[in-house]
Amino acid sequence: MDFTDAVRGRRSVRAYRAQAVPDAVVEQLVDLAGHSPSSLNGQPWHFVVVKDAAIKARLAAIKNRFCPPAKQAYPADFLQQAPVIVVVCVERDRSFGRAIENGMLATSVILLGAHALGLGSVCLTAYNGEEPALAQAIRHELNLPDSIEPISILPLGYPDEVPASRTLPALEDRIHVDRF
Amino acid sequence: MDFTDAVRGRRSVRAYRAQAVPDAVVEQLVDLAGHSPSSLNGQPWHFVVVKDAAIKARLAAIKNRFCPPAKQAYPADFLQQAPVIVVVCVERDRSFGRAIENGMLATSVILLGAHALGLGSVCLTAYNGEEPALAQAIRHELNLPDSIEPISILPLGYPDEVPASRTLPALEDRIHVDRF
Repeated sequence: MDFTDAVRGRRSVRAYRAQAVPDAVVEQLVDLAGHSPSSLNGQPWHFVVVKDAAIKARLAAIKNRFCPPAKQAYPADFLQQAPVIVVVCVERDRSFGRAIENGMLATSVILLGAHALGLGSVCLTAYNGEEPALAQAIRHELNLPDSIEPISILPLGYPDEVPASRTLPALEDRIHVDRF
Repeated sequence: MDFTDAVRGRRSVRAYRAQAVPDAVVEQLVDLAGHSPSSLNGQPWHFVVVKDAAIKARLAAIKNRFCPPAKQAYPADFLQQAPVIVVVCVERDRSFGRAIENGMLATSVILLGAHALGLGSVCLTAYNGEEPALAQAIRHELNLPDSIEPISILPLGYPDEVPASRTLPALEDRIHVDRF
């Protein structure tokens, strides 16, 4: 798929068909994510590919448990329906103080790449600076060493919904020349 | 350009030809970035497009002034050669606690899109959690209101270098099934 079509067509998808996602497709997405830029070219990424139903259910429960009040409209139960979930993580010592940034750059590639390959996904964060217990619970569930930071939780599946169209702000309202 | 080619071919480019970047190309990149996902669909982005030579020089000086010791091998002087610089910013109140994440998702699209459109770029951060004076200096230089957070500084230009090839870690060393 053309790059611009991948960007313009991608939407957040939270309902998936039961159809399995081939391992080769997941590996292609992870491989693409590894081409992202990273601070000092540290390439700090690790990817936990979750297919086990019990682990998916517990990840959903963890996200629900730590869901802030403002985001209660988006429960994480749908994670259980995703054929596969990729948890993007980074090695702290190879992130050079930019763990979140490095993790989000790889996350972006998986979200876009999923759409380019016919899949749907949505970005859930795996940490909250004001609630360290969230990342700790995910670390425990996925057996992550202390040196590894979980960044995002990306369900992958063939879409079973067509998200409503959305309105974007006019370009002239968000572009500023030389100074704000 | 095909999505996968944009991801695999993108490299960090720090040398640019003098050739101007058409406004329409910059606007296309900013428009694409506005299609990124954002927390609660807040679409918090603002983009400051810097073409003024004096502002570019001062942005380079600010980045050099706050460069951490570990990153001294990458001075920011080259920012002055870029025909245009896009500073990705986010409105705090529309970021729902995810300013950096929202900003980096849009940053990723500009970095990839630049390559897809024949340009080179590289990601410089516009803040440092341990050194708030960096964002403050950029905020002052770009006349950003207190409600706006600068996230990344993205020079854009036609490449005047071919970055050396790089080695990526083997996929099996960074992919983990179900648990780490």
